[in-house]
Amino acid sequence: MPLSPKISALPSVLLMGPGPSCVPPEVYQALSAPCIGHLDPRFIALMDSLKTDLQTLLRTQNHLTLPMSGTGSAGMETCFVNLIEKDDHVLVCVNGVFGGRMQDIASRLGAQVDTLEFPWGAPVDAEAVAGQLKKKHYSILAVVHAETSTGAVSPVAGIGELCHAADTLYLVDTVTSLGGMDVRMDEWHVDAIYSGSQKCLSSPPGLSPVSFSERALARLNRRASKVPNWYLDMSMIVKYWEGAKRVYHHTAPINMIYGLHQAVRLVLEEGLEKVFARHLQVHEYLVEQLQGLGLSMLVAEGHRLPMLNAVNVPVGIDEAGVRSCLLTEYGIEIGAGLGPLAGKIWRIGLMGHTARKENVDRLVEAIKQLITT
Amino acid sequence: MPLSPKISALPSVLLMGPGPSCVPPEVYQALSAPCIGHLDPRFIALMDSLKTDLQTLLRTQNHLTLPMSGTGSAGMETCFVNLIEKDDHVLVCVNGVFGGRMQDIASRLGAQVDTLEFPWGAPVDAEAVAGQLKKKHYSILAVVHAETSTGAVSPVAGIGELCHAADTLYLVDTVTSLGGMDVRMDEWHVDAIYSGSQKCLSSPPGLSPVSFSERALARLNRRASKVPNWYLDMSMIVKYWEGAKRVYHHTAPINMIYGLHQAVRLVLEEGLEKVFARHLQVHEYLVEQLQGLGLSMLVAEGHRLPMLNAVNVPVGIDEAGVRSCLLTEYGIEIGAGLGPLAGKIWRIGLMGHTARKENVDRLVEAIKQLITT
Repeated sequence: MPLSPKISALPSVLLMGPGPSCVPPEVYQALSAPCIGHLDPRFIALMDSLKTDLQTLLRTQNHLTLPMSGTGSAGMETCFVNLIEKDDHVLVCVNGVFGGRMQDIASRLGAQVDTLEFPWGAPVDAEAVAGQLKKKHYSILAVVHAETSTGAVSPVAGIGELCHAADTLYLVDTVTSLGGMDVRMDEWHVDAIYSGSQKCLSSPPGLSPVSFSERALARLNRRASKVPNWYLDMSMIVKYWEGAKRVYHHTAPINMIYGLHQAVRLVLEEGLEKVFARHLQVHEYLVEQLQGLGLSMLVAEGHRLPMLNAVNVPVGIDEAGVRSCLLTEYGIEIGAGLGPLAGKIWRIGLMGHTARKENVDRLVEAIKQLITT
Repeated sequence: MPLSPKISALPSVLLMGPGPSCVPPEVYQALSAPCIGHLDPRFIALMDSLKTDLQTLLRTQNHLTLPMSGTGSAGMETCFVNLIEKDDHVLVCVNGVFGGRMQDIASRLGAQVDTLEFPWGAPVDAEAVAGQLKKKHYSILAVVHAETSTGAVSPVAGIGELCHAADTLYLVDTVTSLGGMDVRMDEWHVDAIYSGSQKCLSSPPGLSPVSFSERALARLNRRASKVPNWYLDMSMIVKYWEGAKRVYHHTAPINMIYGLHQAVRLVLEEGLEKVFARHLQVHEYLVEQLQGLGLSMLVAEGHRLPMLNAVNVPVGIDEAGVRSCLLTEYGIEIGAGLGPLAGKIWRIGLMGHTARKENVDRLVEAIKQLITT
C-alpha cells in the first residue's frame, strides 16, 4: 500500500529551534529496525548496553540509569513523584519556563514548595541558594542546568556540595545540556537527573534518560506512601531494567529505544570532548555572525548556552513573520520566545547533529535576507 | 558511521505474543520519515488527520480523541488521574492482570476502590455489575474489554446503559481489542477509553489513543483539585491538540505519531469489517489447528478473543522451554502466562499485521515439532 500522503509529503526541515534537532541518518535507520519483544533476550542486551552508555554520558556510576518511556517532562515528573511525598519541603530555582514547570509539578504532589526567582536570561545564583539552604531545611532542591526558554546556563557544579552539607537531595534538569556540554553527575554530587532524547542527543522526542544516586534510591526505598503515579513508579520500573529475571511493568517503546541507543553511540564514538568543543565553536561562530548583522543576544557573555541561543528581535521587525518565512521559504525552523519573552526573542538551537557551521551559514544568510529587505 | 552492532544484529521475529505485533513495512517507513517540529503547521495537520482517523476507529464523535505520549498503561492512568479525585468511589471489574492494574492506579490516587472479581479466563458478568451499581453510587466504573492476560472478552456493550442510569462514568480498556474487533464508543455509552499502539494497530509500542465523552469532559472541567499528574493532564494537553492556536505542553513524540498515523490509515483502508473478519477467521483457524494437536483453550467458546489466544500447556511439557525454543530456533515469539496463570498457559497473539493464516501455519508446525519430540 502507498504511504499516507501526509507522511510522504513531509518536508526535510533544518531544525534550529529548541528541539527536536536534526536526526542523523543512522538514527532513522535504527528507528525502523525490526521491532522485537520487550522481554526478548536480545532486546534486554540492548537495554543493558544503553544503560552503560548513558552512565558514560552522565559520568555516573549509578546503576539506576535508564530512559523513561516519555518525553523530558515525564523525566522531570519521574524525579519528583518518586523522591518527594506530601508536605515535603522543596526548593526550586526558577529562571525560566522549566523551573516554573518544576514548581507546578512538585505543588501538584502536595509538597510545600519555595522558589528562588532569578531574572529570565540570567543564571541561578549559587550564593542565593546557599543562603536559602541555611535558613530552612529542604528534602530536595531542584535547578535547571540549561534553561531552554532563555539560553542561560546555571552554575550547577557548585550547588551539589551545598545540598549534601544540608542533607538535601539535589535534582538537576539536563534536558538541553546533556550531549552538548559537560554533565558530571557524580563529581557534582547530583542525586537525580533527567534529560530528553530530542535535544543534543538528536533522537526524535519520546524518551527521557533518568539517573538516581544511591542517596536518591535510599529516599525512594524509605517512602511511607506508594509512588502516586503508577506509570513513572521507579520502584517497579527498575525490576524491568535490572537483574537476572526481568519483570514486565509496561511495554517498553522498543523502536524509540533503538533510536536513542544509536544516537548515544554516535555521541560516544565522536568523543565527548570533541562533541562539546564542536557545540562551543559553532555557538561562537553563530554569535559572531549574528552580531555582524547588528543583532544582539539576550544572555550576557559568560552565561550563554552553546546549544540554545536567544537573540533579541530588533525593533520594527515582525518576529513571527520572520520565523514563519524561515520555515516555509527557507526550510529552517527556529523557536519563539515563551512567557514574558514571547515576541521579544528568537531561540536558535545548535543541538547535536544540527550543531554544524554550514547550518549556521544557511540560517544567517536567510535571516540577513529577511531583516534587511 | 556504521550502525551499532546491537541494532544491525536485530533479528526479524514473527511476533505472536501479547504485543508488540508484527509491524508492516509502511509503518517502519513512516517511523523514519523526516522529524519536523511539534508546532510545524504540517505536523499539526497530521495530528488533525490522526484525530479524525482515531474517531472513525473508535466510532465516536468525541472531539477529545488523541494519542497520549506513553504506552497503554499511561492511557489507563490518564483516564483515572483526570476523571477521579481523592475519596471518589470507583468500581473496578477484575478478571485478569489489567483489571488489577486499574485497581492499583485508582487506589494510588486516593480513591475508594471496590472491586468485582471474576475468575481469570472468564468474562465480567454484566448482571453482577448491575447488582453492584444498585447497591452503591460510584463516580466511575472501569472494565477491560479484552483481557490480554487471559484471552477473555467481556460484554462491555451492555454495561454503558447501566452506568448512565446510575450517573456513573463508564471507562473501558480497549488496549488489545481496538483495531481487531468492533469497538463502538458512542453506541455503547463509553465515557473514557484508552488503547495501545502495539497490539491490533501494529505500530511499535509508545503511544496510547485516548478518547473522552462530553460527560467525561464535564467531570474534568468541574474538578475541585488540579490533576495531580502534570504529564497526563488532559486539560493542558487538549490545548496542544485542539484549536486555532496550539499551546505547547510537552514535545510530542513526532516519529511515533507518524508510525501510528500510518498504521491507523492501513486499518481504515483495508476496512474495519474486513479487518475484524480477518482476525476472527485466523483465530478460528488457529483454534482448529491447535485442537488438532490435542491442545485445549483456557477460555470457553463464546468468550474467546480473536487476537489473544490462551492455550493450556499440556502436562509434562516444559512451558518456558517451548517458548524459548520457538524464539531462538524458529524465530517466533509467543507469550507466557501471568500471575496465577504463570507456567500454565501460552498466550498466542493474532494481532493486526500478525493475524494471517500463513503465520498460524508456521507457528503450529513449530509447536507440533516441539511437543511431539
